[in-house]
Amino acid sequence: MNSFGQKLKFSTFGESHGKAIGCLLDGVPAGLNIDEEFIQGELNRRKPGKSEFETARKEDDKVEILSGVFEGKSTGTPIAMIIYNTNQKSKDYSNIKDVFRPGHADFTYFYKYGIRDYRGGGRSSARETAARVAAGAIAKLMLAELSIEVMSGICEVDGIKSQKYDYEAAKKSIIYALDRAKEQEQKDAILKAKNEHDSVGGVSRVLIKGAPKGLGEPLYYKLDATLADAMMGINAVKAVEIGDGMLSASLSGSQNNDEIRADGFVSNHSGGILGGISNGEDIVMSVYFKPTPSIFKEQKTVNTKNEEVDFSLKGRHDPCVAVRGTIVCEAMAALVVADMLLLNMGSEMSRVSQYYG
Amino acid sequence: MNSFGQKLKFSTFGESHGKAIGCLLDGVPAGLNIDEEFIQGELNRRKPGKSEFETARKEDDKVEILSGVFEGKSTGTPIAMIIYNTNQKSKDYSNIKDVFRPGHADFTYFYKYGIRDYRGGGRSSARETAARVAAGAIAKLMLAELSIEVMSGICEVDGIKSQKYDYEAAKKSIIYALDRAKEQEQKDAILKAKNEHDSVGGVSRVLIKGAPKGLGEPLYYKLDATLADAMMGINAVKAVEIGDGMLSASLSGSQNNDEIRADGFVSNHSGGILGGISNGEDIVMSVYFKPTPSIFKEQKTVNTKNEEVDFSLKGRHDPCVAVRGTIVCEAMAALVVADMLLLNMGSEMSRVSQYYG
Amino acid sequence: MNSFGQKLKFSTFGESHGKAIGCLLDGVPAGLNIDEEFIQGELNRRKPGKSEFETARKEDDKVEILSGVFEGKSTGTPIAMIIYNTNQKSKDYSNIKDVFRPGHADFTYFYKYGIRDYRGGGRSSARETAARVAAGAIAKLMLAELSIEVMSGICEVDGIKSQKYDYEAAKKSIIYALDRAKEQEQKDAILKAKNEHDSVGGVSRVLIKGAPKGLGEPLYYKLDATLADAMMGINAVKAVEIGDGMLSASLSGSQNNDEIRADGFVSNHSGGILGGISNGEDIVMSVYFKPTPSIFKEQKTVNTKNEEVDFSLKGRHDPCVAVRGTIVCEAMAALVVADMLLLNMGSEMSRVSQYYG
Amino acid sequence: MNSFGQKLKFSTFGESHGKAIGCLLDGVPAGLNIDEEFIQGELNRRKPGKSEFETARKEDDKVEILSGVFEGKSTGTPIAMIIYNTNQKSKDYSNIKDVFRPGHADFTYFYKYGIRDYRGGGRSSARETAARVAAGAIAKLMLAELSIEVMSGICEVDGIKSQKYDYEAAKKSIIYALDRAKEQEQKDAILKAKNEHDSVGGVSRVLIKGAPKGLGEPLYYKLDATLADAMMGINAVKAVEIGDGMLSASLSGSQNNDEIRADGFVSNHSGGILGGISNGEDIVMSVYFKPTPSIFKEQKTVNTKNEEVDFSLKGRHDPCVAVRGTIVCEAMAALVVADMLLLNMGSEMSRVSQYYG
Repeated sequence: MNSFGQKLKFSTFGESHGKAIGCLLDGVPAGLNIDEEFIQGELNRRKPGKSEFETARKEDDKVEILSGVFEGKSTGTPIAMIIYNTNQKSKDYSNIKDVFRPGHADFTYFYKYGIRDYRGGGRSSARETAARVAAGAIAKLMLAELSIEVMSGICEVDGIKSQKYDYEAAKKSIIYALDRAKEQEQKDAILKAKNEHDSVGGVSRVLIKGAPKGLGEPLYYKLDATLADAMMGINAVKAVEIGDGMLSASLSGSQNNDEIRADGFVSNHSGGILGGISNGEDIVMSVYFKPTPSIFKEQKTVNTKNEEVDFSLKGRHDPCVAVRGTIVCEAMAALVVADMLLLNMGSEMSRVSQYYG
Repeated sequence: MNSFGQKLKFSTFGESHGKAIGCLLDGVPAGLNIDEEFIQGELNRRKPGKSEFETARKEDDKVEILSGVFEGKSTGTPIAMIIYNTNQKSKDYSNIKDVFRPGHADFTYFYKYGIRDYRGGGRSSARETAARVAAGAIAKLMLAELSIEVMSGICEVDGIKSQKYDYEAAKKSIIYALDRAKEQEQKDAILKAKNEHDSVGGVSRVLIKGAPKGLGEPLYYKLDATLADAMMGINAVKAVEIGDGMLSASLSGSQNNDEIRADGFVSNHSGGILGGISNGEDIVMSVYFKPTPSIFKEQKTVNTKNEEVDFSLKGRHDPCVAVRGTIVCEAMAALVVADMLLLNMGSEMSRVSQYYG
Repeated sequence: MNSFGQKLKFSTFGESHGKAIGCLLDGVPAGLNIDEEFIQGELNRRKPGKSEFETARKEDDKVEILSGVFEGKSTGTPIAMIIYNTNQKSKDYSNIKDVFRPGHADFTYFYKYGIRDYRGGGRSSARETAARVAAGAIAKLMLAELSIEVMSGICEVDGIKSQKYDYEAAKKSIIYALDRAKEQEQKDAILKAKNEHDSVGGVSRVLIKGAPKGLGEPLYYKLDATLADAMMGINAVKAVEIGDGMLSASLSGSQNNDEIRADGFVSNHSGGILGGISNGEDIVMSVYFKPTPSIFKEQKTVNTKNEEVDFSLKGRHDPCVAVRGTIVCEAMAALVVADMLLLNMGSEMSRVSQYYG
Repeated sequence: MNSFGQKLKFSTFGESHGKAIGCLLDGVPAGLNIDEEFIQGELNRRKPGKSEFETARKEDDKVEILSGVFEGKSTGTPIAMIIYNTNQKSKDYSNIKDVFRPGHADFTYFYKYGIRDYRGGGRSSARETAARVAAGAIAKLMLAELSIEVMSGICEVDGIKSQKYDYEAAKKSIIYALDRAKEQEQKDAILKAKNEHDSVGGVSRVLIKGAPKGLGEPLYYKLDATLADAMMGINAVKAVEIGDGMLSASLSGSQNNDEIRADGFVSNHSGGILGGISNGEDIVMSVYFKPTPSIFKEQKTVNTKNEEVDFSLKGRHDPCVAVRGTIVCEAMAALVVADMLLLNMGSEMSRVSQYYG
């Protein structure tokens, strides 16, 4: 249950305060150029400590490829990647050893597994998402060969919404803001929360450009459903929209349907997916992150003996988990699309015959 | 790719205008009482033609169990269920034989599979959801033995929102409205759309009561991610929220965290799930349905030769697909929870030892 | 756990004495010509009651396609097939209601599921293999388009071994004997066992011709391992050999290695598989069936209360289950190879690029 | 496709001459004592270079646990284990850079993936089995808590068969011989082959003691079929027998059926499995290994340009791969049984209710 994908499958391992985290990526076609600098670059985009808008915790997040690559190319065998934990500071967490942090997975892991790995988030820590980004980077390399690009940015912080989606701007923004005109206001909201020992929520918008028609395996591995699975599985995500999403539910059919002309769809309310299959338009989704549950304000909670305690968290935490989270959304989206590309290859008998002909 | 679930797995088959639709449900523990009347009752809640708020198409949706049940009890072998199609009227669809209906899966199926089953929606028709409801009914029987209940209702139609969530009221409402005070207004919106040859969107809210702590298999079969997958995979769904969902993204951590006392959580912003695992509180989600794409207003589209055509759909369609969709949400939610219950049984070694001791 | 395959996946349902048995075949590429006569022909090869060498029980085994086929071609959606049970004679089995038949699955199903479906073999009956043959027939249609053929025959009965493997002869033999010179002796052994109210074992040899190089997904979905899984899962099979199999274990490396020349392998001790991947040679295996456990001689056993009883089985049974079993071996082999063909399509990036180029 | 198991799932990575090999073991119940010394001990049983009967290549095979264990106990999260390659000697392999070694996977990997990792066996090397043994060791720890033991030994070398199966003797034998009376003769055969620059085949016999009734998930994850899959997937294995295996095919039903008395089965021809489910008796199987394909005698082969070359392999190789292979058989068997134990936990509704009651 620590694996995702069908034909391009990745598995992750590791806890925030164990020796290492990492992933196995299985199903990468042989002969793909594995650009290690690009992979490290993606990890750098996600890694903490780059600015005042993020946790002060610094992690090198230096990734090492252990297998599956020979002379710079994938060999078709599993690609294992490892990131050693170098900055665990287990002592930081002694004060939470027996206490359940509100909004955290401490409580549920304890009741599920009967055991408490109290060092930070353990397995449920967002640290694990570094492994997703490493796997996603290879998926992106694969997509690039097919002229497909996955981009994202922050379209909302603390209720402050972007008016436009400028993905090039997002690439250059330290908080990946999609709208330069709103960026400062969004930054201010993050710093205000941080100074108040609190946190804020935010929203990531993801765009997939260049996906061919036909991706998605109905009825139970649809493209939209699988993207929803992938996004909702990211730490702190509480809602996912495809295309116009929620808005569609308050429209009429004549407003919401995308009419079609010879040169393509007239509009893209659907977000590029019909019946769970890509229609050749831009694939668009929005991913809603709750505010970081780790805050320094005093909160009411209980300990493992179910005794009530008042509790102030210490340590270093992101004031807005959506910021670095958007990079994880990109990675997961890339992994889903790459998987769907491979799965789709047997959809027509004529093309199977051609392949083996 | 037509199967869902890990340990309780169901697969469906069938097209709207083929001989039959049906499902296989694999992994049901042996010895469960299979109440066929209850299963048929669930299908009746979903079946079309019950009122003016639904399509005029009548389907008996008479389900027959073919295997896996002996003397009223499950045997541990796959339960196959079949529903014969009795009201296909294939002729109704002759006018759309070569035309892609806007907002429909016609276009994407054609480009994926290179073939056109033009009889209604074919595999992508919402008719397939009857098979989900049949499987879901058995999951509900299983949950009932464990005192877990899945309920749902409509909390929004055409932008008209419920002020309260009264699931008992919903059971009695012909449109499954959760708020009696808003029901008439919501009905009017549906009829207005219908009379204008248009359609409206709506929102289903799902409540799971009684789920124990510990359900959900992190990190890639989390309870919330799997529910999102299940819901987004239902026809016409464009967004899914867990707990406060989108709202959480505009709150601060101190507002959004659920504090804990000895007798449980003080609030339930999380919707009963933390770190992808149930925390013992009510599990709550919202599912957003787009307006039915099948409308009778003239629309611009193309045919299979990519020639532009103006087009008016005929036939019989639901003016608000969310109404019957909410029953499908319940079924899918029940299937997810039942699967998670079975998967969770090996989470602790002490309990494995006890099981075999 | 009632499904087999990864990309071409089939699931079966049904008990020997329920309403129907059947299968779902998911992942068939769209556009394959579905020759229903061929499918029925395959079922006829497996069906009982064709001669004195088989059980006298007659089953029509009339297969009906319920979905996934439109105008004679596969549509890419699941193909459901159903075979109604018409000759159950449940009364035949009243005498075994509480008694465990030696060599049968009665005992283990009872202790696993805590329930007894005493009507014949229930789910564990070889009747279920009709559903495999139906699915396998479609796999064979797919293989035929790629010039791959799966053949088989009986190479041993009651220790009487074939001296040659003539697959064309086997097609014409009522016991599918591979060696005409041994056929009469093998037939006599079957009839002798039948007359003595006993049964005999036998061996099926399977040949797959025309498989391209490269099939098999190492390291845990190897072609040979998956064939072994498929064969050992057939009722009554107790051993599986690939290529020279057991013999290889008593040879030296210099005897057993297949040397290679520009025009191919000099010998084929390996049975066409190296490292779990096909090498372009004939794929060969041997499948060992135990004698039918259902015999009429008195045997010692216990009942569901663990009381000792002496017991003589009644009813109608195959004196040599291997005979009809060889048709099931063919079906399973075809399903494995078809799955491997689809899975292999993403093995090289250059070919993925070409596919989407 | 580099994963095995359903609920207890392991994945391996790594090539013989890459940086490291390793595995991920997912689904281990929380709270299991992880005895690292025992794990290392199992690896030591498999590691090469212990005697003249094995390859002279020495590997430390020092295993390190990276995740999933906290304070000596499993936490329910994936257990990653890594073994760094310390003795690669890539130069040894320069002479085979473009040449396909007869009997090896070089040929098939090249044609499947279009790429040649010529350093030793790469992914197809038996070196990968060290990762299986590490995972299997944890499965054995789990089985030990349930009083289930997996044992094995060598019952045949170069056609020299054991007359008895003494598993305690095998534990003490450097070639894991099951019959002390035959051990010297078997050793001599190995050394003779080695001195002649050749190799010999052998057979491993595996015994699983203490498995409860009810393990195995019919019809497509049967215990015997899954064991066959697991065994046939081990490098060099060409045949698998369950219980009496091949012999059963030449017996009559009255000879082969195991009669039942109140205190259990009278005989165990079935090898402890009926209908794919364990019956409470000893589970027994035989696993046939071909002779090591790596021999030093000159052989005819071709290179990657399909040019014919005569070729003498250099390097260090096991003269009888079955010897160390038997340890791998144990590991794989333990993993299968542990998986089946977890899967079986939902087989009866009454026990599910009890679990959550």
